[in-house]
Amino acid sequence: MARTDWNRPPLAPLGEGLRRIRMTVSYDGAGYHGWQSQENGVSVQQRIEEALLAMLGEQVDVQGSGRTDSGVHALGQVCHFDIRSKVPVRAFKPRLNHLLPPDIRVMEAEEVDGSFHARFTTMAREYRYLVKQIDDVTAFDHHRIYAVKELPSMELLEGYAACIQGTHDFSTFCAAGDLSPSKFRDIYVSKWTLGKDSYGYGLLTYTICGNAFLYHMVRSLVGTQLDCAHQGLSVQAFREILDSKDRGRAGRTAPSEGLYLARISYDPDEYAWFEER
Amino acid sequence: MARTDWNRPPLAPLGEGLRRIRMTVSYDGAGYHGWQSQENGVSVQQRIEEALLAMLGEQVDVQGSGRTDSGVHALGQVCHFDIRSKVPVRAFKPRLNHLLPPDIRVMEAEEVDGSFHARFTTMAREYRYLVKQIDDVTAFDHHRIYAVKELPSMELLEGYAACIQGTHDFSTFCAAGDLSPSKFRDIYVSKWTLGKDSYGYGLLTYTICGNAFLYHMVRSLVGTQLDCAHQGLSVQAFREILDSKDRGRAGRTAPSEGLYLARISYDPDEYAWFEER
Repeated sequence: MARTDWNRPPLAPLGEGLRRIRMTVSYDGAGYHGWQSQENGVSVQQRIEEALLAMLGEQVDVQGSGRTDSGVHALGQVCHFDIRSKVPVRAFKPRLNHLLPPDIRVMEAEEVDGSFHARFTTMAREYRYLVKQIDDVTAFDHHRIYAVKELPSMELLEGYAACIQGTHDFSTFCAAGDLSPSKFRDIYVSKWTLGKDSYGYGLLTYTICGNAFLYHMVRSLVGTQLDCAHQGLSVQAFREILDSKDRGRAGRTAPSEGLYLARISYDPDEYAWFEER
Repeated sequence: MARTDWNRPPLAPLGEGLRRIRMTVSYDGAGYHGWQSQENGVSVQQRIEEALLAMLGEQVDVQGSGRTDSGVHALGQVCHFDIRSKVPVRAFKPRLNHLLPPDIRVMEAEEVDGSFHARFTTMAREYRYLVKQIDDVTAFDHHRIYAVKELPSMELLEGYAACIQGTHDFSTFCAAGDLSPSKFRDIYVSKWTLGKDSYGYGLLTYTICGNAFLYHMVRSLVGTQLDCAHQGLSVQAFREILDSKDRGRAGRTAPSEGLYLARISYDPDEYAWFEER
């Protein structure tokens, strides 16, 4: 049974005369207090709701696949909203992009039926975390990567990442304030890759894909792996930290600026192999 | 004979007690009124001179390989300056990057002798120009690419670019205000490539490398090629525009935000094949 079913309310059919629009959105998180509306500071969701009000004359509630923290970026955040307007769906992308600030872009918009829900029908979430050695930071990286003094051993990082893959109780990597009833999560992909940025400078990327994540879990996993690798800690010792379920044994929480919500999957078959392992 | 020799003053040996430092610099041009100090607005050169004053306590004149216009970016601008300080050369990159704003980064610094001059010993300059279809523009592209409604035919663009390669009188693509005695320039590389950005969205890149460029020449070449391709103009017709030496026949000057000074070559052998063709 997929664990994303927790707390899922029954999906109601769309109300009379309502249409549901699904959108994929990219945003540069540097200028926002996260995805969801907060008391202080502007959120991405709020900017999209304002643009929809200007476009449609309707007050619309936008539902994201999940929150992102202040400063966290998105390449493929997914959201949905219900409208009464008859505006053709192909008009949403160009008209909203005209109204939105340039650090929020609608990449796709399509009409879906009431069985789609951006949050409750999510099957997997993929994050990327970008790290660079400070020597390789260019003028185009500000607020978009985490700069470290030296890159640690790839062999250790790869070993740690392999431990994370699978189903685990991730209490070690869960910040205070997480209200999830269970700290178990299914991690389908967890890997480090050392490559180049578009200009040929070294770029270290951590990719993690799972059914769901605890509060600050990705940033805590990244910070702890980097700390452990810098200290030369063995893969076995890292596994013990993971198994300890003791938040006190985690390393730093890596900064938000390196984190990208990369992709949301709604395909129940994409990781169907996972439950059978 | 290399045409970059025009107006080159004799290189004087370094003065008594002076050291010459060569640096490679990347900058996001969005926040600057170009490379060189202007009466209005802050220049990149000025910011580097201020950082050097703070670091060394010396008023230093920084000489770039050439100017870049307001809004134009650099991946590999090269500059030099002479100092009296005994600070080890390895200190320049970290200390200047600590003092400089994050949209200017020193990528390399080395000590050179008086025979090196950032401007007068330049053998080739390489520019890149980035274009995207508006549908592929993400939240991370603002001020960094030129967005067009539709990408034109690659076949036509490739045909035009091939005409540009070689030695030509580029008067057609020379903005008013250029004071060069000759409008002939040697173009070693001129090509369009259709690829992907780091997130998988389509990205069209024009690469041009030559001994030197006239005022606004690269942006005029890009704008004219895009205009001609949108109109479906034949390669022969484009060649006639180039050969006409008539500025009135050029298309738009493409905006500065898509242009990157990519690399400066000081290697006399790199394009030595060119003169022999």
